[in-house]
Amino acid sequence: MSVEEVQKNRAASVFNREQLESILRGRFFYAPAFDSYGGVSGLYDYGPPGCAFQANVVDAWRKHFILEEDMLEVDCTMLTPYEVLKTSGHVDKFSDWMCRDLKTGEIFRADHLVEEVLEARLKGDKEARGIVEDANAEVDADKKKRKKKVKQIKAIKLDDDVVEEYESVLAKIDGYSGEQLGELMVKYDIGNPVTGEPLEPPKAFNLMFETAIGPSGQLKGYLRPETAQGQFLNFNKLLEFNNSKTPFASASIGKSFRNEISPRAGLLRVREFLMAEIEHFVDPLDKSHPKFDEVKDIKLAFLPRDVQEAGKTEPIVTTVGEAVNSKMVDNETLGYFIARIYLFLIKIGVDKTKLRFRQHMANEMAHYAADCWDGELQTSYGWIECVGCADRSAYDLTVHSKKTKEKMVVRQKLDTPIEVTKWEIDLTKKLFGPKFRKDAPKVEAFLLNLSQEELEAKSEELKRNGKIVIEVEGVEGAAELDDKFITIEKRTKVEHVREYVPNVIEPSFGIGRIIYSVFEHSYWNRPEDAARGVLSFPPLVAPSKVLLVPLSNHKDLQPVTKEVSKILRKEQIPFKVDDSGVSIGKRYARNDELGTPFGVTIDFESVRDNSVTLRERDSTKQVRGSIEEIIKAIRDITYNGVSWDEGTKNLKPFVSQTENDNE
Amino acid sequence: MSVEEVQKNRAASVFNREQLESILRGRFFYAPAFDSYGGVSGLYDYGPPGCAFQANVVDAWRKHFILEEDMLEVDCTMLTPYEVLKTSGHVDKFSDWMCRDLKTGEIFRADHLVEEVLEARLKGDKEARGIVEDANAEVDADKKKRKKKVKQIKAIKLDDDVVEEYESVLAKIDGYSGEQLGELMVKYDIGNPVTGEPLEPPKAFNLMFETAIGPSGQLKGYLRPETAQGQFLNFNKLLEFNNSKTPFASASIGKSFRNEISPRAGLLRVREFLMAEIEHFVDPLDKSHPKFDEVKDIKLAFLPRDVQEAGKTEPIVTTVGEAVNSKMVDNETLGYFIARIYLFLIKIGVDKTKLRFRQHMANEMAHYAADCWDGELQTSYGWIECVGCADRSAYDLTVHSKKTKEKMVVRQKLDTPIEVTKWEIDLTKKLFGPKFRKDAPKVEAFLLNLSQEELEAKSEELKRNGKIVIEVEGVEGAAELDDKFITIEKRTKVEHVREYVPNVIEPSFGIGRIIYSVFEHSYWNRPEDAARGVLSFPPLVAPSKVLLVPLSNHKDLQPVTKEVSKILRKEQIPFKVDDSGVSIGKRYARNDELGTPFGVTIDFESVRDNSVTLRERDSTKQVRGSIEEIIKAIRDITYNGVSWDEGTKNLKPFVSQTENDNE
Repeated sequence: MSVEEVQKNRAASVFNREQLESILRGRFFYAPAFDSYGGVSGLYDYGPPGCAFQANVVDAWRKHFILEEDMLEVDCTMLTPYEVLKTSGHVDKFSDWMCRDLKTGEIFRADHLVEEVLEARLKGDKEARGIVEDANAEVDADKKKRKKKVKQIKAIKLDDDVVEEYESVLAKIDGYSGEQLGELMVKYDIGNPVTGEPLEPPKAFNLMFETAIGPSGQLKGYLRPETAQGQFLNFNKLLEFNNSKTPFASASIGKSFRNEISPRAGLLRVREFLMAEIEHFVDPLDKSHPKFDEVKDIKLAFLPRDVQEAGKTEPIVTTVGEAVNSKMVDNETLGYFIARIYLFLIKIGVDKTKLRFRQHMANEMAHYAADCWDGELQTSYGWIECVGCADRSAYDLTVHSKKTKEKMVVRQKLDTPIEVTKWEIDLTKKLFGPKFRKDAPKVEAFLLNLSQEELEAKSEELKRNGKIVIEVEGVEGAAELDDKFITIEKRTKVEHVREYVPNVIEPSFGIGRIIYSVFEHSYWNRPEDAARGVLSFPPLVAPSKVLLVPLSNHKDLQPVTKEVSKILRKEQIPFKVDDSGVSIGKRYARNDELGTPFGVTIDFESVRDNSVTLRERDSTKQVRGSIEEIIKAIRDITYNGVSWDEGTKNLKPFVSQTENDNE
Repeated sequence: MSVEEVQKNRAASVFNREQLESILRGRFFYAPAFDSYGGVSGLYDYGPPGCAFQANVVDAWRKHFILEEDMLEVDCTMLTPYEVLKTSGHVDKFSDWMCRDLKTGEIFRADHLVEEVLEARLKGDKEARGIVEDANAEVDADKKKRKKKVKQIKAIKLDDDVVEEYESVLAKIDGYSGEQLGELMVKYDIGNPVTGEPLEPPKAFNLMFETAIGPSGQLKGYLRPETAQGQFLNFNKLLEFNNSKTPFASASIGKSFRNEISPRAGLLRVREFLMAEIEHFVDPLDKSHPKFDEVKDIKLAFLPRDVQEAGKTEPIVTTVGEAVNSKMVDNETLGYFIARIYLFLIKIGVDKTKLRFRQHMANEMAHYAADCWDGELQTSYGWIECVGCADRSAYDLTVHSKKTKEKMVVRQKLDTPIEVTKWEIDLTKKLFGPKFRKDAPKVEAFLLNLSQEELEAKSEELKRNGKIVIEVEGVEGAAELDDKFITIEKRTKVEHVREYVPNVIEPSFGIGRIIYSVFEHSYWNRPEDAARGVLSFPPLVAPSKVLLVPLSNHKDLQPVTKEVSKILRKEQIPFKVDDSGVSIGKRYARNDELGTPFGVTIDFESVRDNSVTLRERDSTKQVRGSIEEIIKAIRDITYNGVSWDEGTKNLKPFVSQTENDNE
């Protein structure tokens, strides 16, 4: 079968999620955790093939990003004290809105509930109007299915203006506050979808798992909701490690946690998940990227903010260079990473026709972010955010620095010194001790940390009143200082060093979501038998690379099987032996389901002349060569990016009678 | 310098922990987490070299164990519901004893406190008697230093019988209950070592971090204290994945958590740590191992139980084969893994003279364990348990199976059927529904899960009273059943299948402790300059393999540097470029501290003839060859186990004037 035929067959295959999930669970790619104890929603274990696939994806990620770009990898703790996440804003803002049904005790996520109920009503309206849903709408229907809160769609016709109102609410559903969601629920009479009973108004539910560190129980901590904070807190050490050179990037791969209110979409919404995050620290005045030229001609599907605001979903397909030129994407570094994310996703098996980059709407974006694009993958659950790529500006370093009084800046030696005019404060330190005693350091630190605006205001206060009055955290009562204690002046100086807080560009990958999407994108059925599922993983990330198949159990074949096993083990190419009695065709079919890209058949000719057959999973093409030639082809195709045709061009085609043998 | 000279120099180097730690922190191998927020004891972040070292150790572990032995790797969640850890015994027993000082609020770990105070008194006694401590005692002194609870040693002479009593208590310190520790504290008047005030009696403090899963706050969970439970719970799926073949092993690499009362020994006692665990499932009647012959001649230092009970610490050095033969080590599989652990530790840089296997004392071992050996590494903190290797018997599968009613057994087809006599119970199911209604399934399950002993007892009860009375969890009141409901009989049957709960051999690795020990074992100072520290990591696990050093900043050298970089990147050999202005000697010295095994110098001859110099870290030997030859040597030595002499035998020796140049 040619490459084109394979593509045709894959395209013609009708996707069936139940069938895929039955394979994924049956072959133990993953399974609900603790299922013999009744399970815990949102928690999954990866079995051997899922675990190997994940390890290969992580390894590919490390090589594609960390090694290729000389990033500084760190491994920070998951346990995080309260103060850190208070400063970062997570304690106050990392929440979803939940509504409780006081009678049944059920808890709903407010935005999902409103969305689902209105979608169900719109669907009922369409049914009542006799409108047949199109293929696109099927995706939405499917999305509803996963949530399983609305059990029944009632065919009730709505007024035209109500339909319009519902649609407008749904378009903005990600942007409502809790109060607004509560108002919508009252206005549209949204209660428990099963009983119809009203619910409590939405309450903020913080999504972090809380715990206590140490035996006193008094040090409150959380499980980290992202790996980013650990990287920010180590900024100064990383900068020093990098010999103070910028720009540079740190990276981290590890588990993060979100206590989802009601997780229901398999691997797509889980409470414990693997993330891979990059924090690229860059000069806010220069966000160009030295390697941008290497990616500028890559064409991608962009869904910018203005298109979405116009209620459209048709992406703009253009080059990364053009996207940055036109200012659709804010800067070169952001554009560079978007392109690199694309290249990575394609490498590990994402279908490029099911990938788009969607810009965050103004109301979705964190208030500090300069720009943010999500790499979204299309699945049977709809378009899923799998990678975020945000410009976080100087926010994180600034808030941590302010809280801890530890400077987090880059010092750049200036070729040409510059004149700078700014407010400065001088303290007569010898007077502070006698007056403030043990509080003196706090008062001094407070004064030295005043911003330019604050210094200007205090200077006026001092001029006006002959003294200033300040309230210092941890110091009882207000502190009064006259001009014997302090001098505040505007001064002009020549500076040889420029000091700045770098901005952060953050590509952030949800590995589990990407893996599940690749499962969907890789899955198809052989046209000759709808029950024969194939997972067409790229060899690089396939859990096992080779299935070793002795033609029979005959003892004469065993030495060759051992010989090939030994070489594969030495070359560190993961493989499995299947010497079960079943037919070769059946053994291959079982491994098509595991995504094993190559089969090596050992027969009686192998015993005589050391030759074996190599079979390619997707095309079922077979070639024959010596053990050494075949293993070289496997290695080149798997690890060195060589195509099948190129890698096997010196090998003889082999025609088999066994492939469709279904005993 | 020859290999022998290097060994002599390393042996002559006086170990200085402060100096090593200053390098490890200064070069950001690791750092206290959240230190700008004041830090949290027991939490550490790994910086770039530590993170790369850790990744290389994990990679070596995966290849040495999982790939080599075809183990089934799984990745299970860290969040674990209460019920699972209640069943495993962790909720009730995974605790240390803590004492609170009600006045100061300080909390002490009881066993450590008793140990430390008695050791301090013994030391004071020695001082009073004018006894000079020997080198061995220095290790203990150092151990005390880390804890920092006892600030001062008072030179007070004790009675001879008190000295003897203290020493006897210290020898058994790991075996006391909380009550016993409390009695010791009263008897020996042990209070807060600073104030002398008495403490509250010891209370059990559970070492698991607790959290709530889901929005209701009612599903209690913990962060896992080990990765083992996830593997046990997936036993049936793993057995099926392995086509029901046994023995087989699962493996898992991931973080676990212990809320230590008072962690103080750097990376050796932390609250969040990376573990690598293997669960090898084996027939309890046959613990032989097919590959035992491959390891039986390996000689190891064993410290068995009886030697320890005799108060000795001199290990028995013998082969693994002899250890199993003599029954010192319980069985072949346990012996096989002990040998494989040894081979792994040596491979990643453990000093084999600082490794021993210590058998658990009877009072240390879990009550269900058949045998347990700890791989201990000698460090400046004393002998540290880094790897456990336990035979957990059938305990875990049995308790989970009993709790969940899910059978976890291996079914072995018997070549010769056997006659088996056992108690059986038959239920007249149609009577259960009418009598017990919704409780019927619970009552039935209870009866079907009775053990042989219980069935025998119930059979007698039934004969005696004409009925049996049982209490079933979750069913109100006692259930009464007469012989219309049940029949209990002893029957003899011919069985063709043997059903058994496999035993588990568990090698369990604390990766962080191993890493820190390798840091200590690898560290030495050059004899010519005590300030020049070297970390002699094996190339396989070194964070970076190559330092690329252009002789100067001259632009003519840049193309060669780029060319070598490109090849190294393509070959995926981690490297760094140091083109800073400082002398070559200084650049090498900086990288000796990072453990970089190879230096490649690019000079003006390189521009003319494509040749470069390769420098070996430990011997500072240099050879010259073409870029291709040098990179081949680096690859062979790093990844293919080739020695320096073998790998460079075709290259020309090169004499440099730069090594001791310290500008």
